[in-house]
Amino acid sequence: MEGGGSGEDRFIARYFRPIAGSQGALGLLDDAALLSPPEGCDLVLTKDAVVAGVHFFPDDPPAAIARKALRVNLSDLAAKGAAPVGALMAIALPKGTPDAWMEAFAAGLGADAEAFSCPILGGDTVSTPGPVTITITALGAVPKGEFVPRTGAQAGMAIFVSGTIGDAALGLRLRQDGDAPAFAGLSGEQRAHLLDRYLNPQPRLALARVLRRHAASAMDVSDGLVGDLAKMLAASGCGGKVEARRVPLSAAAVAAVKADPGLLAVALSGGDDYEILACVPHAAVPQFTFEAAQAGVPVALIGETRAGSGLDVTDAGGHPLDLGSGSYSHF
Amino acid sequence: MEGGGSGEDRFIARYFRPIAGSQGALGLLDDAALLSPPEGCDLVLTKDAVVAGVHFFPDDPPAAIARKALRVNLSDLAAKGAAPVGALMAIALPKGTPDAWMEAFAAGLGADAEAFSCPILGGDTVSTPGPVTITITALGAVPKGEFVPRTGAQAGMAIFVSGTIGDAALGLRLRQDGDAPAFAGLSGEQRAHLLDRYLNPQPRLALARVLRRHAASAMDVSDGLVGDLAKMLAASGCGGKVEARRVPLSAAAVAAVKADPGLLAVALSGGDDYEILACVPHAAVPQFTFEAAQAGVPVALIGETRAGSGLDVTDAGGHPLDLGSGSYSHF
Repeated sequence: MEGGGSGEDRFIARYFRPIAGSQGALGLLDDAALLSPPEGCDLVLTKDAVVAGVHFFPDDPPAAIARKALRVNLSDLAAKGAAPVGALMAIALPKGTPDAWMEAFAAGLGADAEAFSCPILGGDTVSTPGPVTITITALGAVPKGEFVPRTGAQAGMAIFVSGTIGDAALGLRLRQDGDAPAFAGLSGEQRAHLLDRYLNPQPRLALARVLRRHAASAMDVSDGLVGDLAKMLAASGCGGKVEARRVPLSAAAVAAVKADPGLLAVALSGGDDYEILACVPHAAVPQFTFEAAQAGVPVALIGETRAGSGLDVTDAGGHPLDLGSGSYSHF
Repeated sequence: MEGGGSGEDRFIARYFRPIAGSQGALGLLDDAALLSPPEGCDLVLTKDAVVAGVHFFPDDPPAAIARKALRVNLSDLAAKGAAPVGALMAIALPKGTPDAWMEAFAAGLGADAEAFSCPILGGDTVSTPGPVTITITALGAVPKGEFVPRTGAQAGMAIFVSGTIGDAALGLRLRQDGDAPAFAGLSGEQRAHLLDRYLNPQPRLALARVLRRHAASAMDVSDGLVGDLAKMLAASGCGGKVEARRVPLSAAAVAAVKADPGLLAVALSGGDDYEILACVPHAAVPQFTFEAAQAGVPVALIGETRAGSGLDVTDAGGHPLDLGSGSYSHF
């Protein structure tokens, strides 16, 4: 039963003070950080934990682990229409974690904090007999009243998703079973694309402003497109349908699914996409699409909400799609 | 490498939705919480992690674990002069954690959230192959510009501490080695007092307003009085001295130290007190003491800051106190 002690102070001074340069971090000399909330804004708060062996591979590059820990939170902010204002990080470390690991972790975290204008304001460092566990709380700001909820969808709206879906889930499969026939025909570039999409999520912060202006409802896709959309519809009190052929896939994902059609279900229901799902009133669709493109984020119309409940995913013939493992496409 | 999935949703609905009743928690139906910062206030942010087997005993009552995880953060807020506005909690749980454990944990957390007006706004639940790990981020509010820093002490100020010191460290010793001669003469009530002070920290939120009005510098005592005061003085750029006989001890601690004088060092340098250290200009001492008493928090003047650096802890004769383990009282 140990306290922090001066070992922790030296640790913080060495690894984290250099990356906590914002005024509110108070040089990490205090137990708490100070934040003057931006005028006229609501704050959006999100907190995600990642555990070695559960959410990332223990031998992932430390900088990539740091990036993922931060970015899964930034993705939540983006989906709510928020811009980052800062983050706090707690890390539980096994004894004997090498200095080089910590250096690379802190460097990765610091680089991302700067790249995403999300200063590290403070946190905690503890030891653990278990695996590396990282918890990040990110704070974002939205103009008052402009938070984009998960619950705002209504019948008759367009369902959009950003980027491409399934790359990360396929990248994980590729990493776990690289010799599977499904991946045999992929180019080196395609393999690298899938692996990178699993390792380095890209939070869609550029879309936040567009969502605030046009989306009735939004969330990020972290647990798989189909499951997450079903959750959003249920939270909104409506149903919906998605045409599988409209769901945007990367060239690498298309190649893998062509080689093993069973991987379509993995792409549609796997996790870690960190793309944005949004429901947009039809009248706003042209402007939403235009502004998203201007922001550099491709978005695709994949379906429509309807009255009632449940989500139907249909194939090209309009039939319910078999998503494997005995589960069908009505959620 | 698993995502959250619907198992997590059911888990949240069962255990945490009932205790997350505030508006900003959005019924925990969203990935993020919404907070309208109080007008005219700065936000104070703090984040502490606790790990089973490191910061608490795995067989501690789950409600006590929840209380400690929250209260160590509330103690930080109190020391900064802040009132709680809400908290986010992430918990990493071993597979097979019994339902009864989770129920008691959630009930303990919910009761404290209500008692301390610190609503649970959101968080994350993940599985871990390691020990139970709980991370709480607490947010507090102070009127703009009234944050009480750790860095504000100057030479010639009075050093105060709240409550009594050393109970928790002695309670931990008692728990680990209850048959030690030092504890043989303690009454049942005294033993219970020490054990309770380790298990159930009491954040000094009632002192926050008094600190804002009168303290130049403050921090909570989590890693031991002597070490934490030395940190505060170093952060402020001054030195100080403390007379050990002025440090307030409970009747139980007095009895233990009388039986084993070596335990004085444990009391003064052990951790988990969660009392408040404050440096107060001499002119404000009478009003500080009066208002603290009005707030129901006893405070004791234990020493004085001085120019230079370092902390001297002296015995009744004015000699440097041996704090054991080869470390002396100059820090």
